[in-house]
Amino acid sequence: MRAVRLSGYHQQPVVEEVAEPTVTGPLDVVVKIGGAGVCRTDLHIIEGQWADRTGVPLPYTLGHENAGWVHEVGPAVTNVEVGDTVILHPTPTCGLCLACRSGNDMHCTSSSFPGLDSDGGMAEYLLTGARACVKLDPRTRPQDVAALADAGITAYHAVRKAIPLLHPGTTCVVIGAGGLGHIGIQCLAALSSTTIVVVDRNREALKLAEQLGAHHTVVADGTQLASVADITGGRGAEVVLDFVAEQGAEHDGFAMTARAGSYYVIGYGGTITIPTLDIISTERNIVGNIVGSYTELAELMVLAQSGQVTLHTRTYPLAAAPEALEDLDAGRVRGRAILVP
Amino acid sequence: MRAVRLSGYHQQPVVEEVAEPTVTGPLDVVVKIGGAGVCRTDLHIIEGQWADRTGVPLPYTLGHENAGWVHEVGPAVTNVEVGDTVILHPTPTCGLCLACRSGNDMHCTSSSFPGLDSDGGMAEYLLTGARACVKLDPRTRPQDVAALADAGITAYHAVRKAIPLLHPGTTCVVIGAGGLGHIGIQCLAALSSTTIVVVDRNREALKLAEQLGAHHTVVADGTQLASVADITGGRGAEVVLDFVAEQGAEHDGFAMTARAGSYYVIGYGGTITIPTLDIISTERNIVGNIVGSYTELAELMVLAQSGQVTLHTRTYPLAAAPEALEDLDAGRVRGRAILVP
Amino acid sequence: MRAVRLSGYHQQPVVEEVAEPTVTGPLDVVVKIGGAGVCRTDLHIIEGQWADRTGVPLPYTLGHENAGWVHEVGPAVTNVEVGDTVILHPTPTCGLCLACRSGNDMHCTSSSFPGLDSDGGMAEYLLTGARACVKLDPRTRPQDVAALADAGITAYHAVRKAIPLLHPGTTCVVIGAGGLGHIGIQCLAALSSTTIVVVDRNREALKLAEQLGAHHTVVADGTQLASVADITGGRGAEVVLDFVAEQGAEHDGFAMTARAGSYYVIGYGGTITIPTLDIISTERNIVGNIVGSYTELAELMVLAQSGQVTLHTRTYPLAAAPEALEDLDAGRVRGRAILVP
Amino acid sequence: MRAVRLSGYHQQPVVEEVAEPTVTGPLDVVVKIGGAGVCRTDLHIIEGQWADRTGVPLPYTLGHENAGWVHEVGPAVTNVEVGDTVILHPTPTCGLCLACRSGNDMHCTSSSFPGLDSDGGMAEYLLTGARACVKLDPRTRPQDVAALADAGITAYHAVRKAIPLLHPGTTCVVIGAGGLGHIGIQCLAALSSTTIVVVDRNREALKLAEQLGAHHTVVADGTQLASVADITGGRGAEVVLDFVAEQGAEHDGFAMTARAGSYYVIGYGGTITIPTLDIISTERNIVGNIVGSYTELAELMVLAQSGQVTLHTRTYPLAAAPEALEDLDAGRVRGRAILVP
Repeated sequence: MRAVRLSGYHQQPVVEEVAEPTVTGPLDVVVKIGGAGVCRTDLHIIEGQWADRTGVPLPYTLGHENAGWVHEVGPAVTNVEVGDTVILHPTPTCGLCLACRSGNDMHCTSSSFPGLDSDGGMAEYLLTGARACVKLDPRTRPQDVAALADAGITAYHAVRKAIPLLHPGTTCVVIGAGGLGHIGIQCLAALSSTTIVVVDRNREALKLAEQLGAHHTVVADGTQLASVADITGGRGAEVVLDFVAEQGAEHDGFAMTARAGSYYVIGYGGTITIPTLDIISTERNIVGNIVGSYTELAELMVLAQSGQVTLHTRTYPLAAAPEALEDLDAGRVRGRAILVP
Repeated sequence: MRAVRLSGYHQQPVVEEVAEPTVTGPLDVVVKIGGAGVCRTDLHIIEGQWADRTGVPLPYTLGHENAGWVHEVGPAVTNVEVGDTVILHPTPTCGLCLACRSGNDMHCTSSSFPGLDSDGGMAEYLLTGARACVKLDPRTRPQDVAALADAGITAYHAVRKAIPLLHPGTTCVVIGAGGLGHIGIQCLAALSSTTIVVVDRNREALKLAEQLGAHHTVVADGTQLASVADITGGRGAEVVLDFVAEQGAEHDGFAMTARAGSYYVIGYGGTITIPTLDIISTERNIVGNIVGSYTELAELMVLAQSGQVTLHTRTYPLAAAPEALEDLDAGRVRGRAILVP
Repeated sequence: MRAVRLSGYHQQPVVEEVAEPTVTGPLDVVVKIGGAGVCRTDLHIIEGQWADRTGVPLPYTLGHENAGWVHEVGPAVTNVEVGDTVILHPTPTCGLCLACRSGNDMHCTSSSFPGLDSDGGMAEYLLTGARACVKLDPRTRPQDVAALADAGITAYHAVRKAIPLLHPGTTCVVIGAGGLGHIGIQCLAALSSTTIVVVDRNREALKLAEQLGAHHTVVADGTQLASVADITGGRGAEVVLDFVAEQGAEHDGFAMTARAGSYYVIGYGGTITIPTLDIISTERNIVGNIVGSYTELAELMVLAQSGQVTLHTRTYPLAAAPEALEDLDAGRVRGRAILVP
Repeated sequence: MRAVRLSGYHQQPVVEEVAEPTVTGPLDVVVKIGGAGVCRTDLHIIEGQWADRTGVPLPYTLGHENAGWVHEVGPAVTNVEVGDTVILHPTPTCGLCLACRSGNDMHCTSSSFPGLDSDGGMAEYLLTGARACVKLDPRTRPQDVAALADAGITAYHAVRKAIPLLHPGTTCVVIGAGGLGHIGIQCLAALSSTTIVVVDRNREALKLAEQLGAHHTVVADGTQLASVADITGGRGAEVVLDFVAEQGAEHDGFAMTARAGSYYVIGYGGTITIPTLDIISTERNIVGNIVGSYTELAELMVLAQSGQVTLHTRTYPLAAAPEALEDLDAGRVRGRAILVP
């Protein structure tokens, strides 16, 4: 089969022929890929940023945001059958550690991460596990939903954690209306009646945010702190969801947070520097966020299949993977680039 | 009456004659002081650290940690009567803002803070409000419990927030076994079965911690990170309660926190500096903590009156306030210094 | 002033001249009534069902669902001023008991209930307290929102408690799409993405339910259990909100509840009879619901003022109170009857 | 091997030779039994009460409360190894349904229940699954902990759910200080500072309750409602844990519950009959409780291994199973009878 292979850091991956994966373990599942998202993390992988963390031997296949159809299942698999349409949780998990047993499978102590530390889904077939498969309505086109497998679940996870804080009368600031942010805004609108304020440098992104449910939009042109203070009567927002968390956003985020409020860090790259006096005197929280759990992906798919969360995507054939990566790097992709084998 | 008055910053307060306070508002309460705690914050006030924040006009009376007997009540007061033994929440609150109405009266939008921004309780009488009064068993000696009014409620508030995270099998690290920490340890032991690990520089404090319920003690001599890693099998602690949060403790605290765990900041003085990547990749939280609510003080008094939380105190007559402040500054007070008018 | 007075049980109240109320306590507030809802409980009061419970001396003024403008305030009132437009929480509370201090003021141990146990709001003026007043946008017409003061807050309270159980993919059954139910449906739609199934005997009520956000409607014609089973794939609903709870609804409600689900009782009149084996073997809950808290009323008003919750009302002049009560009793009122003095 | 086989309802099971179970599925585990609890449910099975519910073909082996050592594992088992000491969650679960994925594996949609619907653990070996195994300290004697596998986990599950309601100053009534209740009392004492009131007909059971942490004991001789009212100042208890729920206890339980409180049903056999007016006017809840989750069993084992929960047991050799069942039926067992093969 064909696959997008990375043979060395700091060089473009190439589409090559490799052997098809097959089931070996009892809970293994092989999925025929229908759509594989192209993510900024793929660029970071190529740049070598993840080399030491994952130690993955090269060459290997990229792609950690995948959906398709079940092609082969191991003998102990009972939740999906060959032919089922599925979206894949990014991390096949063990199901036996206490994190998995508590419903927090993103903290599984022995999971893998195809596309990061093993062969991923930018290929015709992907080897994953039964516990990663969320079965979908057979009419779903995998290419239309693949981006929910990683970008979507991460945004949904943060929003779901914040919802109990967002009763009517509160304000939620969303920093960054890009890949994750534009999903987060839709999740907020679906699950709460909070006032949604979206902050972004890009006016086009803010226009999209308005269409998706933002009540106020703020251009991040240096006046964003003052604008949020105005909108919130000087109090700040009960919740700030920071999908950027670098290049200054991480300072804005905490500063925009109200007394007794919570600042959710979802993006990364920057460094927060905060006096402990500022933390305690206002009793503000800084909340870490990672990819969501399997059940959160299942919930998000309910929102997607009922049309409450929609994605902006642009498709490329698998052979055009290098072009898609270049477009992403150059800022030419609106929404999410999806490879279709 | 006599009161401990601060007439200028950077000079010792003196005991002077001033007019007794009287009830003017319908919910006012005048309390005859039985015990007034001497707190490190009093030293900071004298040093002028709070001058700009409170803008309190000098001279004024110190003392924000008070207990005594009700002496006079306004016409709308129904929860206490003259003669009742009471401990006082530090902030008389409005009772009408949404924070007060939600049970979060420490976030009242129009409260005062006697001893910080108005006349406090290092005196024979104190003017406070009905909403600050927690009625006690008449056999309670105010001097025995006064330190719970500020140190106690702050420690209890943080512990109570953390309890839902501390099921059997978890570990809680307590940094600092001093004034607040030694109460926090007792609250943890009373309200959970978590494994309690106490970290302090002072071996005497660690001895006390063991008597109060610590399962492990760790000397903060530079090896504390390794020790906590050993105790937790390399995972870190699900919860870290940092009663110090300065002089390096604020770095230790986050580093000792397990994946998906929470670092509670209670002390202050230092500055945290953390890459957002470290926050999101492990999904750790940094939780701010301020003084507790009125109902938390009421709950803490239940623990105190049943002997589950006890205080180490040393009493001084009111006239010896300058001496008590000097002893505190010089590190000669074990437990809490209490002025008894 | 004119007031709707009940002089004896089992006889119609009459509109009479009585003295205007005036402020006597420091936290008293007199409100000029702009709208007073007519509730089925008023019929029950006239029938004498509440006589023993309240022991209110006759004659007295009916009306427990009120909105208007502040007319006079006591000297300690700081949250409203004369002229403010307000909706009134039904129970002026003490603000000092632990229930009030915890944000659960509906469990205040010393509140009154104007319209039930003292003079109510079917009059030109009503005496209430500062803690009952929720300040509104001055452009609000009290007659448009009065029904939220009791029917609305009760529905909102139950929905808000249920929201944490209603993640995407769940089903919520609403039994009864009348006065409370039609508000509950709107609250569910505003605050969740659950699938809303509405059960009612009345096809007109079901039509309204569809317009307000119901995804499925079920006629309660004897086939309702089977219909809900069909809709939920035989599992039942994670949450059932029963706004009827009499005449068989109380049996349907528990039967429609899924394993590990919760049956919320909001209406009343019937009696549940359930083997404890049925409760434990499926781990179902039966959840009691009373009127909401002050902060819940404030939140509901946010939904109302943004148009997310709207009311169907029919107004009557104060003098037509007997006619309004007759219309309600005869089933001639669609939505809520509102008296406008 | 020898096993305790039921060949017909209404007749004593007999100890017979049967084939040893062996691993067939990839996640199967065969456990050499070290202790198997004898439960009142075994008596009910013999009486045929479960015949229709489980449809288990006779003859089969009893025993649903088991601990021992791992004897053989399937090829996909990674959490235990041959030789490990284990206690077994009663229901091997699928690990793939949403209930399992959420940490609520007791609501697994495709679990089995060895000892009820398939061969159980009153035998030398038991076939179970990897997901049922909680690994223990190798020094643990299975016979000492087996009763925690069913009685213990059920009591712990209810207590754990109630803990957030049981802050200092509250009261928790425990009805029934027998098999489950005596564990529940210890869990309450370990995890809260609530005031524990134990109600039982048996004075010996109440003596034990006092030793285990009860603050008040009440003989259920007809005066129990008045006694609980006295102890709680007429308010009732915030939480009532009813380990009996038959023979009148189910009426006492709700009656002893305070306004806004919760009545936990854990035992079974009776029928509750409650007007919905009583439920809503006081906002009381009735909470169903089933066996706990795997992670709850793991937590309970932490309490057991640290000595915070201890069991009273009496051992019998496997051959004496009929005698043990007779002793249980005749009320001659104090604590729990345990078969040791």
